[in-house]
This record gives sequence, C-alpha cells and structure tokens, in this order.
Amino acid sequence: MVETRGRLTIVGLGPGDPDWITPAARRALDEASDVVGYGPYVARIPDRPGLTKHASDNRVELDRSRHALTLAAQGRRVAVVSGGDPGVFAMAAAIFEAVEAGDPAWRALDIRVEPGISAMLAAAARLGAPLGGDFCALSLSDNLKPWDVVERRLRLALEADFAVCLYNPISKARPWQLGRAFEIVREVRAPEHLVALARAVGRPDEGLAIRSVAQVRAEEADMATLVIIGASTTRLIPRPGDARPWMLTPRSYGAGA
Amino acid sequence: MVETRGRLTIVGLGPGDPDWITPAARRALDEASDVVGYGPYVARIPDRPGLTKHASDNRVELDRSRHALTLAAQGRRVAVVSGGDPGVFAMAAAIFEAVEAGDPAWRALDIRVEPGISAMLAAAARLGAPLGGDFCALSLSDNLKPWDVVERRLRLALEADFAVCLYNPISKARPWQLGRAFEIVREVRAPEHLVALARAVGRPDEGLAIRSVAQVRAEEADMATLVIIGASTTRLIPRPGDARPWMLTPRSYGAGA
Repeated sequence: MVETRGRLTIVGLGPGDPDWITPAARRALDEASDVVGYGPYVARIPDRPGLTKHASDNRVELDRSRHALTLAAQGRRVAVVSGGDPGVFAMAAAIFEAVEAGDPAWRALDIRVEPGISAMLAAAARLGAPLGGDFCALSLSDNLKPWDVVERRLRLALEADFAVCLYNPISKARPWQLGRAFEIVREVRAPEHLVALARAVGRPDEGLAIRSVAQVRAEEADMATLVIIGASTTRLIPRPGDARPWMLTPRSYGAGA
Repeated sequence: MVETRGRLTIVGLGPGDPDWITPAARRALDEASDVVGYGPYVARIPDRPGLTKHASDNRVELDRSRHALTLAAQGRRVAVVSGGDPGVFAMAAAIFEAVEAGDPAWRALDIRVEPGISAMLAAAARLGAPLGGDFCALSLSDNLKPWDVVERRLRLALEADFAVCLYNPISKARPWQLGRAFEIVREVRAPEHLVALARAVGRPDEGLAIRSVAQVRAEEADMATLVIIGASTTRLIPRPGDARPWMLTPRSYGAGA
C-alpha cells in the first residue's frame, strides 16, 4: 500500500538574496528529507546529513513534479524549491497540474506552498514604487499559450493603463517576443513613458536600467530580467549627483489625481 | 542646515505571521531608531530601549510620510512599517509622493524599500496555485481614482482572462463597490467560474472560502479580505474527506493547453 503520510512543501526562495528567504521557508528546508528543483535553485541549499538533493534541468517541470510527489507518497518530507514566489510563473502550478493528472492517492498528501518574495516585488522595491497603482504580471513565454493570447492580454492591459510586469521576456529559444511586445507598447504608450529593466535583483550581478518607451530595446534584456512597463502616470523623481532617480506610479489617477 | 544623512526604510511586514517577515526586513526593524506606521502594524513591533514608536491612524498616509521623512532628515534611522509588501497598495508610493512634493533635501536621503510577502501571494499559497497563469492586482478603492477607471480596468482585465486580485474590496465608507464589481464579473465570466475570498491570511482569524461566480456575495468580504477572481481556466482539484479542494490556474492556455 502506498504511504500517503509524506509531506510536500513548495518553497519560495525569493530572487536570490538569502536574507529574503522567510523563516517559514527556511524551516521547510530544514525539515526536508529531500530537496527537488531546478539545478541552480537546489545548489543554493547547503548540504547536510539526512538531506538528499535532486537537481533537474529547466523545462521539465512536470517530470520533476511527479518525482517530488512520488517521494512524498513514499513518506518522505519533500521541499520543492522555486525561485521568487512559487505561485508566480513557478513550481506551484506545475505541482498541482501533476496532482490533477496523476495518482489519485496524491490528493491525500499534505501539500503546502510557502510564499516567497517574487521577482516583481524585489524589482519594484529597488526602483522605488513603480507598482504603486494597479498592475499586471504577464509571462511572454509562448511555450504553454499561443502568442496571440499574449499579444491580446498585453494590449488590453496597456489599454487599461496597468503597469505591466513581463516575466520570461526573452531566451535563446524565444528571441523575438520581447521586441514584438515593445512594438505593441509603442503603439499604446507615449514615447516618453517609462520602462524599467531589472536584472538578477538580489544577486551579485544585479543590474537596473530605466528607459523611455522610445529608447528601450529588447537586446538590453536577458532570461534573468524582469521588465516593468510603467503606466501612463509613472514618472521619475530626479535625485542629486549621480544617484539613480526613483520610479513612482502614484496612487492617484485621473480625475481623482 | 538640514542633516540628510538619515535613513528611511519602508519595511514590508507581510500579511501577519511573523515567520513571513524576511531577515532583511527584521534587520531594518532592529536597526531603526524610530518606527512609523498605521497603529496595528506599529503594534506588531516589540518595544526596546532606544526605539521610538510613532503610530498613526489609517488614511493619513501623506502626513505620516512627511513625518517619517522629517525624522530621517534629522539624522534618525526610520523604519516605516507596511502590511504585506510596501510596493503593493501600501506605503512605498505614499513615501515617494511625499518626497516628490516635499523638501528638495529629502531627495538626498537614503531611502530603501524592503519587500515583503504580499497579501495576494499569501492567499494564493493557501489556496493552491490560483495565480499560476497571468494575473492582475486591482484596488477597488475609489478614494484616489474615479470609479469609472476601476470599472474599465476590471472589465478589460476580465476580457483579457487574467486572474484578478481585488485589494481594498469593501469598507464602511465604500460599501457598494464590491457588489458592483461582482455584477461586472457575472457579465464576463460564466456562472460556474471561481472566486476565492481569503481573509486575514497568516493571522489567527484567517478564513478561506471558494465560491462560484453565480454564488459569491459581497457581504462575505470585509476590509481584511483579498478577493481572487479566477481566470476562465481556473478549476478545483477535489480532495478526499473534508479537505478543502486546491484551486489551480494551469500554466497552459488555449490552443497550447
């Protein structure tokens, strides 16, 4: 008989700075018998006696999920590690998709999600308050949804004047999508409106750039970049010397401003 | 001459569970000479020698911001505390609005934002993976933007088939807005589509409810509730016994599903 007393916790490691890992997430890692995840995330977890690490390649989320669930069903205490927050374009959806399609016994498992600091919140924190009004999070990846859905969502979000966070903006396998997205941005927003590129926030190779809609180029982004397209109300607060300006989307809008 | 060597950090306390406060946020609190914020958030910070606490009422964010900036300009180390993440409908925008409109010397201050677990990420974690696809965060408050902007944004977000997180859904001063929002949801989504009500996640009075679009009533929400309107693809994973089902918005969409 399959043992269903195991536990599986999907743990948000945040964007990279260990000081952004919550005590609750840290405890889930400390209590785990097995850590499962994409190689670079698993590599962040220190070795210790009694802990088995299972690193896998990127883009095998469902295989990885089934493996983690199988371990939990054997009675192991499994931590599935995820960058940022597990619920935002990360492992939580993959795990529950695997549960839905998999062994019915998995539905009796104790499965929890430990939230983390998402990339968009970390990027916004570094920039000032670019998400101070209403905003969206949109993945530019067309691996799992048709590109016309991405374009339609982006266009409607811009028309609604949300600030828009673009996840998965560009990769070797998806080289043109961000350039196309910027074309749409240039159709809807004014040339002087703002776009921020926040790369690897919280890691040693962190980089931040603020551009106008007219200036911004897709080549400035890479896989580790979170792109924030400002709302029409988003603006800069200049600072003395060579300090980077703060980026602000005020809370007020329109007639109430 | 005004001293501009002070520091102001806008600190995200997360939704309420102290184990969701990051070590970086904790350090900013430990190093502060002054804590400034809305009463209930300030009350979460333990007293200690050398720490002055400044609690203020809700809806006085700009007065509170100017006070915090004045203290920092006097050379104090100020922590402005915010529930959830400071960048999401919280104190970061208020502080930078006060900087923009205030004493030019404030622009030379060392102002930082320490991100926190936002209410939507905590609610999503409890529910499963309801934000596994693209999503928006929209405040229903019409204190600072006209209600027609709120309605237009909600309608466009629903038409784009985002999952939609509604912040500030209802209060004594804003009693009808959530009911009106649900009317719009019923126009765009099907009756069987899903809505989650996540109340006070991470606090002792936490409560979670999952309803259909046809069922949901505004009276079930209060000021401490985060409402998540599912996408058309959002569904439940039933579980054995009386376990609450998991709520999943899969990563796949449309022709790619």
